Amino acid sequence: MESSTFVLFGATGDLAKRKIYPALYNLFADGKLSGPLSVIGLGRRELSNETFQAQVLDSLRTFSRRPVVESAGLQRFLLAFEYSMLDVGRPEDYTKLLAHVQQREAELGIPGNRMFYLSVGPEFFGPIAANIHESGLGDTTGWKRLIIEKPFGRDLQSARELNESLTAAFREEEIFRIDHFLGKPMVQNLEVLKYSNPVLRALWQNRYIANVQITAAETVGVEERAGYYDKSGALRDMFQNHMLQLLMMMAMQLPKDSSPEDVRSKKRHVIRSVRPLLKEEVTQHVVRGQYGAGHMKGKAVPAYLNEPGIDASSQNETYIAARLWIDDPMWSEVPFYIRTGKRLKEKSTRIVIEFKEPFNDSHNVNRGKLTLEPNLLVIEIGPGEGISLQLNTKNPRQHGSLEPVSIRHDSANPDLPEAYENLIYDALLGDATFFAHWEEVELSWQWVQPILEAVEEGKLPLHTYAAGSNGPAAADELLGENHWWLDEPEEDVEASRRTDEQAIRAGA
Amino acid sequence: MESSTFVLFGATGDLAKRKIYPALYNLFADGKLSGPLSVIGLGRRELSNETFQAQVLDSLRTFSRRPVVESAGLQRFLLAFEYSMLDVGRPEDYTKLLAHVQQREAELGIPGNRMFYLSVGPEFFGPIAANIHESGLGDTTGWKRLIIEKPFGRDLQSARELNESLTAAFREEEIFRIDHFLGKPMVQNLEVLKYSNPVLRALWQNRYIANVQITAAETVGVEERAGYYDKSGALRDMFQNHMLQLLMMMAMQLPKDSSPEDVRSKKRHVIRSVRPLLKEEVTQHVVRGQYGAGHMKGKAVPAYLNEPGIDASSQNETYIAARLWIDDPMWSEVPFYIRTGKRLKEKSTRIVIEFKEPFNDSHNVNRGKLTLEPNLLVIEIGPGEGISLQLNTKNPRQHGSLEPVSIRHDSANPDLPEAYENLIYDALLGDATFFAHWEEVELSWQWVQPILEAVEEGKLPLHTYAAGSNGPAAADELLGENHWWLDEPEEDVEASRRTDEQAIRAGA
Repeated sequence: MESSTFVLFGATGDLAKRKIYPALYNLFADGKLSGPLSVIGLGRRELSNETFQAQVLDSLRTFSRRPVVESAGLQRFLLAFEYSMLDVGRPEDYTKLLAHVQQREAELGIPGNRMFYLSVGPEFFGPIAANIHESGLGDTTGWKRLIIEKPFGRDLQSARELNESLTAAFREEEIFRIDHFLGKPMVQNLEVLKYSNPVLRALWQNRYIANVQITAAETVGVEERAGYYDKSGALRDMFQNHMLQLLMMMAMQLPKDSSPEDVRSKKRHVIRSVRPLLKEEVTQHVVRGQYGAGHMKGKAVPAYLNEPGIDASSQNETYIAARLWIDDPMWSEVPFYIRTGKRLKEKSTRIVIEFKEPFNDSHNVNRGKLTLEPNLLVIEIGPGEGISLQLNTKNPRQHGSLEPVSIRHDSANPDLPEAYENLIYDALLGDATFFAHWEEVELSWQWVQPILEAVEEGKLPLHTYAAGSNGPAAADELLGENHWWLDEPEEDVEASRRTDEQAIRAGA
Repeated sequence: MESSTFVLFGATGDLAKRKIYPALYNLFADGKLSGPLSVIGLGRRELSNETFQAQVLDSLRTFSRRPVVESAGLQRFLLAFEYSMLDVGRPEDYTKLLAHVQQREAELGIPGNRMFYLSVGPEFFGPIAANIHESGLGDTTGWKRLIIEKPFGRDLQSARELNESLTAAFREEEIFRIDHFLGKPMVQNLEVLKYSNPVLRALWQNRYIANVQITAAETVGVEERAGYYDKSGALRDMFQNHMLQLLMMMAMQLPKDSSPEDVRSKKRHVIRSVRPLLKEEVTQHVVRGQYGAGHMKGKAVPAYLNEPGIDASSQNETYIAARLWIDDPMWSEVPFYIRTGKRLKEKSTRIVIEFKEPFNDSHNVNRGKLTLEPNLLVIEIGPGEGISLQLNTKNPRQHGSLEPVSIRHDSANPDLPEAYENLIYDALLGDATFFAHWEEVELSWQWVQPILEAVEEGKLPLHTYAAGSNGPAAADELLGENHWWLDEPEEDVEASRRTDEQAIRAGA
């Protein structure tokens, strides 16, 4: 890895503190950052380097997975951080920034490699890119790269405009669009699982697979993000980006080699092959939901409409499920079921592959009482990581009967690199494998566009589901004869309400 | 299940006490024995019913998996046991036995169903069968069945003679030959695993399987069985019966239905298709070994030749390994490696299926440092039971490298029915699925015969292996480029010897 300057817009923001500083620190502690380190933090306020470094230290103490201990190394790490005040719209601030960057490059002997990390709202992407270009910050003898975060547009049109504004200053191969789901170890493992395991490769075909279910269920509600979320909803906040990225990672075909270009070209092939939705058909394939009041672990929680900051007449969805097909010989006739939502029963991001059951009925005739569950391959992405395979075996206590068992590998390593560590490291290496290419983003918006329009035109009903449930009943109906696997059984809502009332009467 | 009389030859013997009484008791306690129970124990000594019942109770207290508690049920169970003295060669004793059986049948209202269990040496099988026939014990209005145990002959010729002597009194379908490996839950599961799991069915073909390894490794030495074992050896004691039965269960093709006839016909097909050995080629495909002195868990253990009761010049094998092929399209080009031995490093009976690795080398070029282990499906038969699958996954701590992980299901249920419970229950039901058919026995001897002859003619070398090792080096060479999977690494013999000497010096 060549050393570089890390220019961070939004250095006093929440993401920087929670994710970026801890990631840089852990990469540094793992010895993965070679050469001298130079981080220039940018923000609207005036801050001394010392105050900035104290803030960084504070964020490490709060959010780093690795305990922060006083050491010469820690001091060296903190001294790499300097601060410049910058108003994103003022060209002269960029000229000042350029001087600052060049001064540090000269002092530390860093070649002109510059990483621009835009940890700011998307409305600033365009102006910042333009100013990087015009100030000469982008004219460098080394490489320059841009890291940006979602949201990347609100629809196809706005995403295109946003991208246009970036490409004035950066070429596509210089832009690293973070989708932090792509940084999760088990998502990165998907590619490896397929190409390095002949048994999975043999099974990874529509001849054996009945359907694929991709779930990202959250237990939290809207939290402190009401303002943003009520304008965005599950479709824009989760589905268009994270869920469709999981779909691409899951469904892409074994790359000939695993170069970033090849992986991304295979992903593009997937998203391009997803059968387009007609606006008129959206209701048949997509279910929107919004959580009502309910119970989470026996505790009453309010409806979305009663959350602070949410418009009491909001028609925003907190849940979305879709059924889709990939029109490719490999996935022909295999439905993909995708769902994500807030205030669901259990926090779980997972992919379940249900295998077909070409079972010979003569067994039933001969042995009676056979109840066969389908074989499931489960890839648990979060909060824990694991791979499991559900098989049928003989119940050793009951003659002739079968029972499903799960054979499971549990990573359960509490000290794995976090998504941001993986992604920042890859960006510094220039490895774009696990970043969203513009065409992936564009094609995802394109597929989602008819849903956005159906919503806007009031054509897609909004179902209510109880907080703490597994989502709206309509999402179960979407699957027809199939059903979502591995959901925790819903509690008896009445029973938990009674418990809750008892607790209230007891003064709890 | 129809009620029947259980006539047990060898009622005061070791097997009866350790296995048969506990099995009957647990079947009784599980409510699996319907109708009144009548067990008539036979032995050479004079015993009163009361003394016999006390012996049965004592054996339950010592060997039953289920705790024995005083109860009306226990009393009822014990009162079902009566005793008759019988000299297997005296016809008048059988006449007396017939009267006893008939008296109990009349008293208890048991239809004329008679189970004859021969828990005696094989030299008595013929005389007992003849006397059952001649005494009229076998002329009954209900069914009659015979349960016998190994050893079933010492070679092809003697096995045929033994069988001949049985068929004078019993038809093949009335003979239940116990191979207790077939009673183990995970062996019985093999059939079910294949037919009820589409993912395993898809993989269970020579297109995907590189080789199959069947291991039955014991840590014990010759124990108290020197007299028998030194004349029998691993080939007769384990290989011809248990190991070839495991081979048949593993390699048989999915039965159209799972009737006993069909399962056994598929097993016969396997053993019949094993490529015959020419006597001249035996050395290329079979390795014999005998354990020398060594260390088990750091403790010195003597060589086989120094075991009490063993002839100091014995050429008997305590280890045997063989490589064979099944000449069937399904298993074409898939070698089967089979081994069993005493005084090995680890007690383990298991089947390991190694999958082929048609890995595209371009990955190595692009990503470097990839070390791929083959996928393994491991069926653990004993002492624990489990199914595991070894997969390659991305090492989340090391960029771009892979690591093998095992996803595993562990039955780990301490209270499973034992092999004898399963088998006696099946015999009482008349279900012969998990018993060795005569043709299986005959074909097994037939396949083994050239090995026996090569041994007799001194053509098959006897390798020495250290007690506590994984067997002779020649057994590793037998596999050529492949190797035995999942053996525990051998200790540094010198190191353990030193530890031992230190212990000796320290007076331990």
